[in-house]
Amino acid sequence: MPQPLSRVDGVRVLADLNALRAIGTYKTGVHKPTFSEPHMRSLQWLAEQLPKAELDAAIDGIGNVLGSSSKSGPKLLAGSHLESQNYAGWLDGPLGVIYALEAARVINCDPDVHGAVEVAAWCDEEGHFGHFLGSRSYVGALTEADIDAARDRTTGRSMREALRDVGLAGRPRATVEPGRHIGYLEAHIEQGDTLESSGLAIGVVTSIVGIWQYRIGFAGEQNHAGTTRMAIRKDAGVALTKFCVAIDDRFPALCGPRTVWTTGRITLDPGAPSIIPGHAEMLFQIRDDDPEVIERLEKLLRTMAAEVTAQGRCSVTLERLRTGTPARMNAGFQDAIEAASAAFAGGRSIRMPSAAGHDAQILSTVMPAGMLFVPSIGGISHHVLENTSDADIVTGAQVFVETCRRLLKGILQGG
Amino acid sequence: MPQPLSRVDGVRVLADLNALRAIGTYKTGVHKPTFSEPHMRSLQWLAEQLPKAELDAAIDGIGNVLGSSSKSGPKLLAGSHLESQNYAGWLDGPLGVIYALEAARVINCDPDVHGAVEVAAWCDEEGHFGHFLGSRSYVGALTEADIDAARDRTTGRSMREALRDVGLAGRPRATVEPGRHIGYLEAHIEQGDTLESSGLAIGVVTSIVGIWQYRIGFAGEQNHAGTTRMAIRKDAGVALTKFCVAIDDRFPALCGPRTVWTTGRITLDPGAPSIIPGHAEMLFQIRDDDPEVIERLEKLLRTMAAEVTAQGRCSVTLERLRTGTPARMNAGFQDAIEAASAAFAGGRSIRMPSAAGHDAQILSTVMPAGMLFVPSIGGISHHVLENTSDADIVTGAQVFVETCRRLLKGILQGG
Repeated sequence: MPQPLSRVDGVRVLADLNALRAIGTYKTGVHKPTFSEPHMRSLQWLAEQLPKAELDAAIDGIGNVLGSSSKSGPKLLAGSHLESQNYAGWLDGPLGVIYALEAARVINCDPDVHGAVEVAAWCDEEGHFGHFLGSRSYVGALTEADIDAARDRTTGRSMREALRDVGLAGRPRATVEPGRHIGYLEAHIEQGDTLESSGLAIGVVTSIVGIWQYRIGFAGEQNHAGTTRMAIRKDAGVALTKFCVAIDDRFPALCGPRTVWTTGRITLDPGAPSIIPGHAEMLFQIRDDDPEVIERLEKLLRTMAAEVTAQGRCSVTLERLRTGTPARMNAGFQDAIEAASAAFAGGRSIRMPSAAGHDAQILSTVMPAGMLFVPSIGGISHHVLENTSDADIVTGAQVFVETCRRLLKGILQGG
Repeated sequence: MPQPLSRVDGVRVLADLNALRAIGTYKTGVHKPTFSEPHMRSLQWLAEQLPKAELDAAIDGIGNVLGSSSKSGPKLLAGSHLESQNYAGWLDGPLGVIYALEAARVINCDPDVHGAVEVAAWCDEEGHFGHFLGSRSYVGALTEADIDAARDRTTGRSMREALRDVGLAGRPRATVEPGRHIGYLEAHIEQGDTLESSGLAIGVVTSIVGIWQYRIGFAGEQNHAGTTRMAIRKDAGVALTKFCVAIDDRFPALCGPRTVWTTGRITLDPGAPSIIPGHAEMLFQIRDDDPEVIERLEKLLRTMAAEVTAQGRCSVTLERLRTGTPARMNAGFQDAIEAASAAFAGGRSIRMPSAAGHDAQILSTVMPAGMLFVPSIGGISHHVLENTSDADIVTGAQVFVETCRRLLKGILQGG
């Protein structure tokens, strides 16, 4: 079997990632909330790189950067995102964008490959204003009303205002052109330690977990923290903390082997030291790749909420903010990634589900989609210490570009 | 026994309270955080009223409004505060200030009374920047370093910046002039339902509860809410909610009959739905009139913190933000209030402790101090529904002014 060619330039890939890290640097990571100045500068930076990959660059009305090729032949869409979580790591997002850019640079001018790689940076994958707003817009699953309602979860600023401020208001939103792409490929750091702890280089993603998110509200009675006896209090904060502990007590009996749940935010209202909270709210998330498990757990949540309300002190409301059907990755894409890993990573790959959400799950609703992971040191992500070794980054790039080449040529298995 | 004269103008008292309610109105209450525009406008309003009570008005370098009399004879200091909790009631603070103003208006021009009532509005009793900053400044218990360190608990703005913004930076801070005052009198709504439920008009305060406040911090490990298995998480938010529930389980065995405790605020860091909180923090308060009870409970808190830390997932730190020795109210002041209640409220008074903190506890460290309560409808306070009937407000004003007259004349008992 002849070794396939790779013209991946590892130095260039690392330099590009570091160029993006230099925009909005925070400690060893970055702070690039959606539509912040460093985020917009990163989008601009990408738009300036795309012509070097023979792509026409455009930033659309939701903040997606899209590079389109006029080359004939099949087209593969590839990308990820450029904004970060608040005060987070440098690779979550940019890695997949730079791999896509590198693939386009290598492949689009290669006369030996019929077709091209087109590059996308999806806006707001990290969910500052919602969830997967950019990729959902592209697949036609985001209405104007959704945008009207979207607000920055940190600052409360409306998305409309943010779009106006960064000069994107009024631009058209790009949408998928049916039949244009043979599929979508995305790379990402693993955000777990499976690869690192097993000495593997590539994760071939089989499915992306579903994410269900809830706002759980507790209504009690606001009162003075000195003059209101313990026995007559209707403390919404106490009800909330008991609810959290009850979740951890009761979920294990009904959850699946890979279910995870998280309370990411708690707000007591009014939040003053001398006032008994009259309202309290928690953001609660469940992830699983089995919708039946989620259904059981949501039913349990509703039962628990009704039980607390029935006790008469505080009433509990459960609002579903987000649901996500688990997404299967395309079998041919999985085969292509595995074959490319055999060629460029000594076969050090493993098939694995993704417990994190990614734009690929949105794209998978309109075209075949695939994902590959590279190792993440210590499994750390969404944190400034997030990192991957240079060697693993370059290996990942080689596997990614080779996967693109194979997909465009229709070579899925090794050989 | 001759009925004492009262020239209290109930219509004027109610009109003044409504004038203050019209500044910074929020629903049926007010929103006047310390140094906000409506708070400053309220201070200005008071400064403009004081000359009508033959008082020279000044706003000092910490935001205290002080009305000084040049009349000879004994002087009684009286007042309360004008800022509010966020989105709270209209009487908490203003009632005591307007009673003091009315007493000054009635008494300072009365040739029959030797001496005068001086009026104070203490800044930040509600603790936006600290606790009792204004009255502590006046009694000499607030250092420049304390002011340097003070920050608005809602906005994070430093007190120095706030003082600059409202034009108070650089002004001298007024301090107590030893021997000038025979004591300090303060009126307040009860903030509980003892008076209302017993059909009483006046609470004669015997002591003010001590308030101990803590910041309890939990340090775990921030990580991805999808990819981090439940078994290996170090979720600071989970540790915090368990701690809250454990407090409610373990405090009852060691607390006193009137102990109350409250978690007023919870913060999970970074506070995003898809991130396991790496840090969490709660503001926790204990109130009791017995320092030994507090000591037992603080010891328990430290034991609980050490137990959690020893389990190895999250480490817990306990920082004492505030301690308050319970304050005894002066016996002569209590007698004078009771006698005035006999004359103007048909004797419908009761001696009771205050479970809320008040500036009187700070003033009591440098001069005799007394407090009276008026009924609070439904016991509600620190809420826009806080209210007292007009009749009770006017009765309270009559008792307050009569108490001032008796204290200045040295008549403590009835007769």
